[in-house]
Amino acid sequence: MDRFYNAPGDVVDEILHAAAATAPLRVAEPDSGLRILIRKDWNKTDQGRHQVAVLSGGGAGHEPAHAGYIGEGMLTGAISGSLFASPSVEAVLAAIREVCGDAGCLLVVKNYTGDRLNFGLAAERARGESLNVAMVIVADDVAIENAPQPRGIAGTVLVHKLAGYLASQGTPLDEIRERAEALCQRMGSLGMALSAAAQPGQAATQRSPELGLGIHNETGTRQVDPKSADEAMALVLEPLRNALSDRQLSGPWIALLNDLGSCSTQEMGVLAASLLRQLGFDQVMYLIGPAPLMTSLDMHGFSLTLLPADDESVTALSAPTTAPAWPGLRATQAPTQFSPDTHQDHEALADDAPQDEKTSAALERVIDALRQAREELDALDAKSGDGDAGASMQSGADAIAKALAARRLNTEALPLMFAGIGQLLSRDMGGSSGVLLSILFTAAAASLDRRGKLDEALNAGVEKMQAYGGAQPGDRTMLDALVPAIESLQRGESLAQAARAARDGAQATAQLVRANAGRSAYVPESALKGVVDPGAEAVARVFEALANE
Amino acid sequence: MDRFYNAPGDVVDEILHAAAATAPLRVAEPDSGLRILIRKDWNKTDQGRHQVAVLSGGGAGHEPAHAGYIGEGMLTGAISGSLFASPSVEAVLAAIREVCGDAGCLLVVKNYTGDRLNFGLAAERARGESLNVAMVIVADDVAIENAPQPRGIAGTVLVHKLAGYLASQGTPLDEIRERAEALCQRMGSLGMALSAAAQPGQAATQRSPELGLGIHNETGTRQVDPKSADEAMALVLEPLRNALSDRQLSGPWIALLNDLGSCSTQEMGVLAASLLRQLGFDQVMYLIGPAPLMTSLDMHGFSLTLLPADDESVTALSAPTTAPAWPGLRATQAPTQFSPDTHQDHEALADDAPQDEKTSAALERVIDALRQAREELDALDAKSGDGDAGASMQSGADAIAKALAARRLNTEALPLMFAGIGQLLSRDMGGSSGVLLSILFTAAAASLDRRGKLDEALNAGVEKMQAYGGAQPGDRTMLDALVPAIESLQRGESLAQAARAARDGAQATAQLVRANAGRSAYVPESALKGVVDPGAEAVARVFEALANE
Repeated sequence: MDRFYNAPGDVVDEILHAAAATAPLRVAEPDSGLRILIRKDWNKTDQGRHQVAVLSGGGAGHEPAHAGYIGEGMLTGAISGSLFASPSVEAVLAAIREVCGDAGCLLVVKNYTGDRLNFGLAAERARGESLNVAMVIVADDVAIENAPQPRGIAGTVLVHKLAGYLASQGTPLDEIRERAEALCQRMGSLGMALSAAAQPGQAATQRSPELGLGIHNETGTRQVDPKSADEAMALVLEPLRNALSDRQLSGPWIALLNDLGSCSTQEMGVLAASLLRQLGFDQVMYLIGPAPLMTSLDMHGFSLTLLPADDESVTALSAPTTAPAWPGLRATQAPTQFSPDTHQDHEALADDAPQDEKTSAALERVIDALRQAREELDALDAKSGDGDAGASMQSGADAIAKALAARRLNTEALPLMFAGIGQLLSRDMGGSSGVLLSILFTAAAASLDRRGKLDEALNAGVEKMQAYGGAQPGDRTMLDALVPAIESLQRGESLAQAARAARDGAQATAQLVRANAGRSAYVPESALKGVVDPGAEAVARVFEALANE
Repeated sequence: MDRFYNAPGDVVDEILHAAAATAPLRVAEPDSGLRILIRKDWNKTDQGRHQVAVLSGGGAGHEPAHAGYIGEGMLTGAISGSLFASPSVEAVLAAIREVCGDAGCLLVVKNYTGDRLNFGLAAERARGESLNVAMVIVADDVAIENAPQPRGIAGTVLVHKLAGYLASQGTPLDEIRERAEALCQRMGSLGMALSAAAQPGQAATQRSPELGLGIHNETGTRQVDPKSADEAMALVLEPLRNALSDRQLSGPWIALLNDLGSCSTQEMGVLAASLLRQLGFDQVMYLIGPAPLMTSLDMHGFSLTLLPADDESVTALSAPTTAPAWPGLRATQAPTQFSPDTHQDHEALADDAPQDEKTSAALERVIDALRQAREELDALDAKSGDGDAGASMQSGADAIAKALAARRLNTEALPLMFAGIGQLLSRDMGGSSGVLLSILFTAAAASLDRRGKLDEALNAGVEKMQAYGGAQPGDRTMLDALVPAIESLQRGESLAQAARAARDGAQATAQLVRANAGRSAYVPESALKGVVDPGAEAVARVFEALANE
């Protein structure tokens, strides 16, 4: 299976079923064979007396068009054919009969022969029944120069919105038709795709990048070879702007950026950025999307629609609607910037920081011990991880050594010293270990500041390490030495006793073969047997150095 | 080029630029190297005094997460890393400093080591600055049974919404954290993909369908082989419901259906329908999506998140928000049905319809002429189209003959007869020609009914044919014979003269080599030279038959 479909013949009914199950719609009985969806709250003898009903539709495969645009302020209903095939005259006529009240009904039709004919005949038959029906044919595609019948593509969605807005305002049918037709004259669309659309059940086919394709898998008018999203957007923009310029149309524009089917949100974001950069914020005043608005099944491509940002269009397109697929009209602007506050805690790493001789000496011993342990720790790590545990510990030790030599660590005030070490480790040690140890010292500093007790502070730090790191004692990590050492201190035992507890804990990691977290989590059990965890070993050495006054 | 990207290293900044250009956000100065986006209207000393700020973020590549969820009632801001990589501690801390006021700040973090550590250390450092920061870690993935650290995936979006809603209500930080954590305990998510995500600049790789993958391209926990969307959904539903059932959780559910990247709207619609069918409307009470909510670049897959539909969740998730990517919570229901009105105009095709002998005889002559012309018309059509013009005309003639024999056509009242012929042709003749001729007769009937003049009525019908069919005289269609014949009638000339005009028009089509519409539009010019258009020929024969009293 290469796509999430069931039987190819069921796709359309399944999609419409899902749409109708999650929106206030009513649908034609399935037995009728007609695919008609209508606003549940619409009553032709009630709202329909004063408000024009707006219907659209066409072949399926363009979802969210057209059912997704049904809602107050947009479509009254939609008629769907099968994939890429117009609905029948009978279906369109039944929909008109269902919604058309005294105020009349507007049909918004994309300019494809099948749609024109079937909607057209339905309109004529409805007129024969004295229903007041008008039609607007959308032909926004500019792909083919001087085309006698330009296709209707994504710009159709703008006509749905304008007509729906005007209808909601009580505008008479003839005026809505005129203004919808005027909108059609003012806009243009152009698409580019990297692949064809694949019908359910058929294999996907790669196609050369093509410019000026339709939404029914018609071949593009021109093969192109863009090297980047910027080039792709430029290739679309140039003929589109030329075509609009030939009609005396110019910006600032409302732009509709349409995902033709299977572009990722990331690609659409890059294309939107490219559009804004190439035309500028003063030219792209409003953006609709990027979003899949008028798709061609899973076609990997996009289309751009441009429309001058006149007041009437902006009003109509920014009016609220309950239609679930309308993405809204968003004003664009150069992003406002702020200067992020990235100051370090200068008190923690100050110049000429007060020095306590005994504490400084203890730190020196730890630094020496870690520097000396580098090769052994790397060797241990090579058996259970990527072999850089010693190097990583040494960078941390070096950073502390450098700050100590520069008298930037306040060894008189432990909370400040811990906070300073926390900053140094996160900045200079790197890796998960650096962040974890930084969490230990930073949390310990805050606790020490509040409560003043060293053993409690270290314990608070270790708890945070566990909370954020996700490891527990027994997982072959630093914790296997740290936790017993701190527990020893909390029992009021000496540093020497704590160091022994750390050593015992480190040794015990050699028997731990199941690692749930940390560096060893991805190593086979057999490789771990008999190997002390390098992090726990480093912790044992630190405590031994501290105890060795 | 196989995807719409520029330089791979620019993707993240381009996407965020587009997001910030189309929403009321402010962003960290690009020179800072930090990717922070904040609600433009948020001021920590103003709203931040009484409302908790809610921050989220993580690696990029999951768009619209997280910037798309910034807005009133959802996130206050978001911090983005590079693709699939956590943002730095410095970036998270700067964001906290920017938004955190007296009410405090909640960090919503997906359960990945890098995010936990970097957000965690930033939180600890912020606490060291006396900022009131709490964190909730989302671990909704149920892919790995008894996983010590389940991953955070699409369910994270629900936590954004709940926390943002509670914050907007002035709920204190601790309570928001508790309720967000309670939400995390109540939900589960599971994904399936047909392809891996491809990093920009790297080739896409097909992967076997996999169940239980992460959003960073981690391999799934299990290879699967679904044959349909229904099977795919069932494969996701079973372990997901089991995992929730193990936690004593049961429906009715709120379901979030997430496109992991490059599913088409059609596939997502089919999956939504499948979900509704398999669980039923009483079990899926609310649906969020289907939409790309937490993506993994262009991964072709989906994930489903289930959460019991308790009142608190429904209230929080249905509250309004200005966040552009939140798709809303939609109640589901079995679609309401209506019986479409597909009645035929029974007056036009009645039993025992009054018969006018002369008109009936004229109709008989036309029927005979068309039946006799079948082979010749097919032969003409074989040179310029698909060779069925004669057969198509004969089916129309046969339908009329049958109705005439059954006395169902009212040949006494021309408006009724025309309306009846219109119905017969659209139903039984088929093809574009059937619809076009039906439009001619239907529109003519309406005009005749209103104004009573035959030549005017036929002209009105021909105008509609042109409007809906899109062809003009000179395009090698029926119009080339119809228009001169009707013009002749409008000049008050005899049927014989009109028939001659039709014949001349038909003959002239042999010289028309450029076809803009109709059957010949796709045929090379050389193939058309000297060939009379079969539609025009048929029209000429009809007028000749009418004149031949």
